[in-house]
Amino acid sequence: MPKVAVDAGGADLGPAEVAAGAGLAAQRGIEILLFGPADEMAALPAGVEVVDAPISIAKAADPAFAVRSTPEASIVQATRAVAKGRAQALVSGGSTGSALAAGLFNIRRDRGIYRPALALPLPIPGARPVLLLDVGANVACRPEHLVQFAHMGSAFCQAVLGFDKPRVALLSNGEEPGKGTPDLIAVHEQLMGQGGTGLNFIGNIEGTHITSGMADVVVMDGFTGNITLKVIEGVSARTMRAIDELALVSPRARLGSRLFAPAMVALREEIDPETPGGAYMLGLRQLGVVAHGRFTKRGFARAIEVAALGVREDVIARTRAALEAAGALRKPTRSTQANLPSEHAATV
Amino acid sequence: MPKVAVDAGGADLGPAEVAAGAGLAAQRGIEILLFGPADEMAALPAGVEVVDAPISIAKAADPAFAVRSTPEASIVQATRAVAKGRAQALVSGGSTGSALAAGLFNIRRDRGIYRPALALPLPIPGARPVLLLDVGANVACRPEHLVQFAHMGSAFCQAVLGFDKPRVALLSNGEEPGKGTPDLIAVHEQLMGQGGTGLNFIGNIEGTHITSGMADVVVMDGFTGNITLKVIEGVSARTMRAIDELALVSPRARLGSRLFAPAMVALREEIDPETPGGAYMLGLRQLGVVAHGRFTKRGFARAIEVAALGVREDVIARTRAALEAAGALRKPTRSTQANLPSEHAATV
Repeated sequence: MPKVAVDAGGADLGPAEVAAGAGLAAQRGIEILLFGPADEMAALPAGVEVVDAPISIAKAADPAFAVRSTPEASIVQATRAVAKGRAQALVSGGSTGSALAAGLFNIRRDRGIYRPALALPLPIPGARPVLLLDVGANVACRPEHLVQFAHMGSAFCQAVLGFDKPRVALLSNGEEPGKGTPDLIAVHEQLMGQGGTGLNFIGNIEGTHITSGMADVVVMDGFTGNITLKVIEGVSARTMRAIDELALVSPRARLGSRLFAPAMVALREEIDPETPGGAYMLGLRQLGVVAHGRFTKRGFARAIEVAALGVREDVIARTRAALEAAGALRKPTRSTQANLPSEHAATV
Repeated sequence: MPKVAVDAGGADLGPAEVAAGAGLAAQRGIEILLFGPADEMAALPAGVEVVDAPISIAKAADPAFAVRSTPEASIVQATRAVAKGRAQALVSGGSTGSALAAGLFNIRRDRGIYRPALALPLPIPGARPVLLLDVGANVACRPEHLVQFAHMGSAFCQAVLGFDKPRVALLSNGEEPGKGTPDLIAVHEQLMGQGGTGLNFIGNIEGTHITSGMADVVVMDGFTGNITLKVIEGVSARTMRAIDELALVSPRARLGSRLFAPAMVALREEIDPETPGGAYMLGLRQLGVVAHGRFTKRGFARAIEVAALGVREDVIARTRAALEAAGALRKPTRSTQANLPSEHAATV
């Protein structure tokens, strides 16, 4: 039975909201180790074991430093529980920077992985979600990082989202293989050569097609991923607000808007960021999920459920097998593997 | 009286649609030199002088090569007319690649400019537009290019859009000055130091804030700009389509949607890409406007009007003055200025 280590720090609504989410997930049969201030947590159902960890480094300006210097912090304790096998997956309550730093430091990169990536299943109205990665773990990426992201995203999409032969695309400024930066052109070429290895690479796509249902996994560097994700958030919010404001322009519009309201509620639910449960840290020795700080208990419960699903579906081993088959694992070097969080600059 | 050189090539609806747009603009008092196949153009009002140029290179795979090898092409003739002073601004009917290549080759970069940029005024529902640049002229940019873009965008925004002291921001993955790639951090630092020169630099903004009204000009490299613009197009289209589909879910929604329809028409008009008239080529010796190939005559007329406005408001001289005041002009080098279109890879 998989157990999920949950860090209650970082949530805008406080540790109690994360605890409530853990409670919901436990009622659905998931075992949870919950790290946070015990005195802020109400009675929780069986299946949730609370470990008192009142110190949070979710707001630390330098997450890597905070992780190294605060062993008692909730996220550090949670990642150590995963590293020691007391839990098989991690859920963090909202701070991407500290979750990435603590994940790298304690859970560590999986063998052969250059860089972990943050992957986000973006909800698309009326369609399946599309998995975007990297949405912010690595500001700068080398071609071999992006090649690994393609396999990591594909394996996650199959194992956790349940897609058959997910269509993997590379985000660029044109569909032609020669479009993009020299690095992207190199990635395109390498991924084209890995078609026989189980990867369903469909080539470059443009920004317009992220939301068009053309691809299941879209690969990009963490800078572009951060911009893409935030532009999508901004445009969605702006459009929804504009529609709300239009309801006030005339009595006719007001009535129409009132009648249309249930449909709009359905749309808002379809694109609710709580539905996917958060962003996934791929490339560590165990799966990590970073919930959004704004989540309510529903989103935290969902994050915990997806983490447990990842364990049951063995996403880590499946990712490793895909990378191995494609010859995309990092070759061992003579020096000890550099595995320090300071290499990474979380952008989310 | 400014005269605008218009290339009728590249429009999805054909040269006759561009000609009809030229006709509309001429009725509003603008003089036009129209290059395209004379036999496809109906009777046009006084003020439009048609130059028969039946060859279009709008679809050329290698625009730079096509420009050099096809002197009789409509875009080449139109840019040469501008270079020779027969017209004071250029409007191209839809092919960004050939317009950029021909613009660089014939109109040439203005003195002290590293790279021309494509600037797009993005319509925001219920608010002023925001000018994004570069949206695709330069896949890779050095810091000094982005610094110039900030001034070029600010000067355009003042002269043509009529904004007082436009707020200029740099797109990054976080608002803190230290966020972003090393190049972006350097740009931030340089622009911060140019506050006394008339530039109203407000720092970094994230993708969420492009559409929030926080900035009037948002600076980015051409790769990021292409992705940003196309993601915005994709998300807007997807959201609008989802709302249309929701109108079919129930009789109540259908009625609500019918009553709300005029408001939605108003929203669609507010974000209509024809309203800004196209993307602006800044940094050449004269202003160029690249209309979108999908435009109808209304959009082409608008592009011609904005080009004429740029001439009347002397956007070129004002841009040069702003760059000079900021010490951001390129220093003359001993070698002849490289000014070849092949340096540039249009991404739109």
